[in-house]
Amino acid sequence: MALRFAAAGAQVLLGSRSLERAEEAARKYNDILGQTLIRGLTNGEMLAGSEIVFLTMPFDQAAAAIQACASQFHPGLILVDVTVPMKFSNRHAEYLEQDGSSNSEIIARNLPEGVELVAAFKTVPAHFLAEVEKPLECDVFLCGNSARAKERVMEAVRMIPTLRPLDAGPLSHARILERMTVLAVHLNRRYKSKAARFRIIGV
Amino acid sequence: MALRFAAAGAQVLLGSRSLERAEEAARKYNDILGQTLIRGLTNGEMLAGSEIVFLTMPFDQAAAAIQACASQFHPGLILVDVTVPMKFSNRHAEYLEQDGSSNSEIIARNLPEGVELVAAFKTVPAHFLAEVEKPLECDVFLCGNSARAKERVMEAVRMIPTLRPLDAGPLSHARILERMTVLAVHLNRRYKSKAARFRIIGV
Repeated sequence: MALRFAAAGAQVLLGSRSLERAEEAARKYNDILGQTLIRGLTNGEMLAGSEIVFLTMPFDQAAAAIQACASQFHPGLILVDVTVPMKFSNRHAEYLEQDGSSNSEIIARNLPEGVELVAAFKTVPAHFLAEVEKPLECDVFLCGNSARAKERVMEAVRMIPTLRPLDAGPLSHARILERMTVLAVHLNRRYKSKAARFRIIGV
Repeated sequence: MALRFAAAGAQVLLGSRSLERAEEAARKYNDILGQTLIRGLTNGEMLAGSEIVFLTMPFDQAAAAIQACASQFHPGLILVDVTVPMKFSNRHAEYLEQDGSSNSEIIARNLPEGVELVAAFKTVPAHFLAEVEKPLECDVFLCGNSARAKERVMEAVRMIPTLRPLDAGPLSHARILERMTVLAVHLNRRYKSKAARFRIIGV
């Protein structure tokens, strides 16, 4: 995500609990890009300087990460949840049902006032995003209950060439998007690919 | 479905409880096609002459329809379930949760021995299928627990130009496919279309 946005001209800050780890990751990514476009910061500094923050940790760590940073969130901050609750058994991906809720809805329940959550990028393969020279040529579905936040993230997505943002409705539709990732993982296995992704025809 | 398959050269039998209604529907469809390609029959006759039967009734009528015909099913019969449990409120489509199960899995539980269920065509808009002169240019996802039945339906799908069948995994993946229809309905409303459909890139 950081690589693709930086390559598209966005200012990217990479946050971690440890400044050293953030700087090391930023250095690694800048080496790939061949330019110094990404900065590594502590989560607090990253949050202070960011309008849109992408949650890219494993699905079951997102709630704790947010709780640890909640006091540093500023009103108007937009969080983008890309997590998908999946478990793997015998190389088969299975959707991890959580009382009928999507992971995005679970995360949204504990956000401080004034912070908005948008679910997005759930169906776009992370490793394919990292191959910045390859055109994405797919759609990214965004859902959320704040039209303003959704529109702002869609605007950011439009920076990335050949990636089309589509408004996928209210946050509850993350239940659909998260399951679509399971389908993409299955199709990759079934058809020996690593890059299955969705495009909507007729819209 | 009948129109698209008949136009592609398949022998299509249209079944109903009432012979008159079946014949009338067949006549109407043949008029659209400009050729006599579809026959109307009672469900019993249709079943006796069919290898693959598409369940195209509203989602909440499928179980009863199957129960009414179950004694006329022959071993090896393949049922294709295209139903999607949705409710509409204020023009918004909502997925109708049924104890975590897909409608396909609910239907499958009560099938006679030797009859196989494949879930397919859930995400392909019915009215767009009916516009036989328009290329579909999308994917159709098939899921089911019988590899033989799934392959046989995929073979049938390949008759239809520009429609690609994709093996979407076990029958439980109908939970994904049914919800994707809700997304397509939403996208149609949001982007003033009637033809939103899915294509997988990278496979």
